[in-house]
Amino acid sequence: MQRMKCIISYDGTLFSGYQVQVEKRTVQSELEAVLTKMHKKAVKVVASGRTDAGVHAIGQVIHFDTSLDIPTDRWVQAMNAMLPKDIAVLSAEVVSETFHARFDAKGKTYKYEIDLSDIRNPLMRNYAFHYPYPVDKSRIEEAISYTLGTHDFSSFCAANTDVKDKVRTIHSIVCEQEGNLLRLTYTGNGFLYNMVRILTGTLIEIGTGRREPEEMSYIIAKRDRSAAGKTAPAQGLYLEKVFY
Amino acid sequence: MQRMKCIISYDGTLFSGYQVQVEKRTVQSELEAVLTKMHKKAVKVVASGRTDAGVHAIGQVIHFDTSLDIPTDRWVQAMNAMLPKDIAVLSAEVVSETFHARFDAKGKTYKYEIDLSDIRNPLMRNYAFHYPYPVDKSRIEEAISYTLGTHDFSSFCAANTDVKDKVRTIHSIVCEQEGNLLRLTYTGNGFLYNMVRILTGTLIEIGTGRREPEEMSYIIAKRDRSAAGKTAPAQGLYLEKVFY
Repeated sequence: MQRMKCIISYDGTLFSGYQVQVEKRTVQSELEAVLTKMHKKAVKVVASGRTDAGVHAIGQVIHFDTSLDIPTDRWVQAMNAMLPKDIAVLSAEVVSETFHARFDAKGKTYKYEIDLSDIRNPLMRNYAFHYPYPVDKSRIEEAISYTLGTHDFSSFCAANTDVKDKVRTIHSIVCEQEGNLLRLTYTGNGFLYNMVRILTGTLIEIGTGRREPEEMSYIIAKRDRSAAGKTAPAQGLYLEKVFY
Repeated sequence: MQRMKCIISYDGTLFSGYQVQVEKRTVQSELEAVLTKMHKKAVKVVASGRTDAGVHAIGQVIHFDTSLDIPTDRWVQAMNAMLPKDIAVLSAEVVSETFHARFDAKGKTYKYEIDLSDIRNPLMRNYAFHYPYPVDKSRIEEAISYTLGTHDFSSFCAANTDVKDKVRTIHSIVCEQEGNLLRLTYTGNGFLYNMVRILTGTLIEIGTGRREPEEMSYIIAKRDRSAAGKTAPAQGLYLEKVFY
């Protein structure tokens, strides 16, 4: 028996999120179906964390235990040959039997993409948030400076969560603009439920001038979801990397 | 009564192509449904040409006749508010009543995108052809030099067509590589059925070394579909621009 760690990518569009749900198509259930077929017995997959319906992953990490004698470099091909086209295994390696994709994660990077074009782009409808308003990047960058570091992020957490400790550390938020595409890249030691989407919704409201950059400190201090901006939609969000 | 010319964009993934077919979801039927609702009577739309299932458009051109008194700049918003998310109107203008989207087209630009990565990218599955083989761009460029100009392109036309005159002029084919993405951009006075996809399939076979660049002249001279390479899949193809 050995433990495998895989980096996987998926297009979240046609999934009811990452985690298994009865009668829904989820990333976890597709992965487990393939591994169960390969092993001819039930195999459970553990990910670094779940992602919501519509959210994409470029570098999600999973682990599972196997007794199959497949060379490491063959795992990628073997799984990709059986997985549906909207999931791919990018790499596979044998890790210590104590490795845990969720508990050992030291941090994550998410990116959020926003299409600022006046007219919505049909080819981007599942891959970016169409937000056709003028945004001032320097206002967003000022607001980011108040957001970095260690805070209680209760204001940026969806109400329906049972996580007690809402203190997280954001190491960096990079704001880049290429033409009409605005990209926010968040790196931190962990993110609460909907935290990146609520931060993004709030930052773009600041970018358009609907809120002031210095409000960010006030919103964080309030520890109240209703103080922050709207939750940006799922389709602009990508889990980019998990750190161990 | 006046004639409107619109530039439209669509994601071909969920359409059975551009042209109306009974009981199928097509771009034309979605456009006509919206215009018929707006006009409260049947409106027929004419495009520069059809596109196949899975083929995308960044700059398809259509025309239709209207008696509605809508200012030009409001047409875009009015139609986009009613169209499904995978079609958008990018611009609208009043044109002469003799303008015809198909008969007046003087040329077109198509692009074809190929993902050369070893592992398929789930986020690109509907937007590029995954072709995980090493390709030598200079071989493709040499083959392109034999392809440009005016030729009978029968070898690059799907068998099931009733077009008699298969002589077309290709003004340019640009081959660009950005990382693992290979892009071929074709501009010509017109393209036969599947012509861009068969040209692409043949050029990449030359790029990998399965065929020699100079075979291109021979394939053209044969005027026989079986002389050319495979038809590259629909999802990598984009109608980029129509010239009038």
